[in-house]
Amino acid sequence: MKELGFIGFGSFGKFIIPYLKPYFDITVFDVKDFSTEAKALGVKWGALEEVSGKEFLALAVPVQYLEDLLIQIKDFVRPKSLVFDLSSVKVKPVELMIKYLPENVDIIGTHPLFGPQSGKNGIADLNIVVCPVRTKKNGNLIRFFGQELKLNVLERTPLVHDQQMAYVQALTHFIGRAVNQMDIPDVEQKTPAYQFLLNIKGNLGQDSMDLFYTIERENPFAKAVRDQFIEELYKLKDKIEC
Amino acid sequence: MKELGFIGFGSFGKFIIPYLKPYFDITVFDVKDFSTEAKALGVKWGALEEVSGKEFLALAVPVQYLEDLLIQIKDFVRPKSLVFDLSSVKVKPVELMIKYLPENVDIIGTHPLFGPQSGKNGIADLNIVVCPVRTKKNGNLIRFFGQELKLNVLERTPLVHDQQMAYVQALTHFIGRAVNQMDIPDVEQKTPAYQFLLNIKGNLGQDSMDLFYTIERENPFAKAVRDQFIEELYKLKDKIEC
Repeated sequence: MKELGFIGFGSFGKFIIPYLKPYFDITVFDVKDFSTEAKALGVKWGALEEVSGKEFLALAVPVQYLEDLLIQIKDFVRPKSLVFDLSSVKVKPVELMIKYLPENVDIIGTHPLFGPQSGKNGIADLNIVVCPVRTKKNGNLIRFFGQELKLNVLERTPLVHDQQMAYVQALTHFIGRAVNQMDIPDVEQKTPAYQFLLNIKGNLGQDSMDLFYTIERENPFAKAVRDQFIEELYKLKDKIEC
Repeated sequence: MKELGFIGFGSFGKFIIPYLKPYFDITVFDVKDFSTEAKALGVKWGALEEVSGKEFLALAVPVQYLEDLLIQIKDFVRPKSLVFDLSSVKVKPVELMIKYLPENVDIIGTHPLFGPQSGKNGIADLNIVVCPVRTKKNGNLIRFFGQELKLNVLERTPLVHDQQMAYVQALTHFIGRAVNQMDIPDVEQKTPAYQFLLNIKGNLGQDSMDLFYTIERENPFAKAVRDQFIEELYKLKDKIEC
C-alpha cells in the first residue's frame, strides 16, 4: 500500500481521510495535537519531518499558512515523491509549491469542490479540479480520483480556476455567510427559490472562517465580483426606492 | 360548472388558467387584448363588466394597479360572489378588497408561492397561502386548492404572511435579480451551493419587473430585510479587506 503523508487535520482533512484510507497507508500531522482523533479514524499520527517524507504528500492547510509550511518541509520532502495541495484557490498555492519544492518532486494542485456539508451523502460524482504542474505520478493520482473515488475530474489552469471560482465560491460564500449572519428563518410558507437560499446557508454556514478568508482574500478575482454584486444591489435598491 | 371571472392575463394568469379550466367555466379580461391567446387556451374573453359579475372572481393584477381596478369593478361584482386576489403580498390587497368590495361579497386573499418557472414540472405539493376574510364560500375554495390542485394550503394572517415573505421573496428576488444582472456564468467546475445560486437566478430571472416591484415595494417589511442584508455584506467586506 502506498504511503501518504497528510498535513492539516481540519474539518476537510477529517472528512476526506476515511475516503482515502482504503487505498493509502496514511500518517497525519497538524500543528495542533489531534493524535487521539487520528487514531479513532484508524490512521497514524507522525511528526512533521516524518509525514513530509512520504511518497505521496497532501497539504490541507489554509492558504495563508502554506508558505510557512513549505519553508518548513522543503528539506524533508522525498525525491520523486508527489506533493499535492487541497486549497480552494490555485494560482497562489501552485506558485508557492513551484517556488519552494525541489525540482525532483512532482507537484499537482487540486481543489475538491465539496466539503463536509455538500458531501454529507457521499462524494461520488462531485467535482474536483486538478492543475498538473510536474506530472510523473500525476496521471496515477488523477485516475485515482476518477476511478476509485468516482469524482468528476476537471483539468484547469490555476488562472482559469481562480477566475471561475470568484463566482462559484467567493460570491456564493459571501451571500451564504451574510444570510447566515441574518439567521434567515426556515418557514413552511416558502418558495423553491427560498429553499435554495436556505440550502446555500446550510451548506456554507458551518465552514470555518479560515476557509472563508482563503476563498475571499486569496483569490485575485474575488474582490471585483463582490464589488460588482454590491453595485447591482444598489442599482436595484435605487429603482425600488425611487 | 361554476363560472369564474379572471382579471389579469399576465404570465401567472397564462400559467395557472390551464390548471383551473377543468373545474370552472372561465372568462378572462385584461386591459390589453389577449383574446386570441385566451381562445387558444380554450377559455372565453369578456368585457370587464361581464367578467367582474361572475360567481367566482380572481384578481391577478400587479398590486400597484389593484386599487384602481377595485374602484372600476365594485359596482359590477355580484352579491354573494367570492372575490380572491393572487398577489405576492397580502396586507395591502386584503385592506383594499375590504375597503372597496360590497359587504355581501365574500373575500379571500391568496398567494400561490410558485410561478411559471418553479411550477414548470407541475404544481402538486407546492405552497399556497390563504388569508380568509369573509368566509361563506371560502371553505370550498380552500378545499379545492388542496384536494383538486393538490397544493399545500397554509392559512396565515396578512401580517404574518408579509413578515415572512420579506425573507422568502423580497430577499431572494433581490439576490436573484442582482446575480441575473451580473449574468453569473454556468460553468462545469461548480459546487452544490453555486448550483443553488444558479437555480435562484433561473427561477426568478424570467419574472416581470411588475412582480419584482410588487414584492419589494408593496411589502411593508421588505426594505428592512434588504438593508439588513446589505449591512451584513459590508460587515463581511470590512473583515475580508481589513
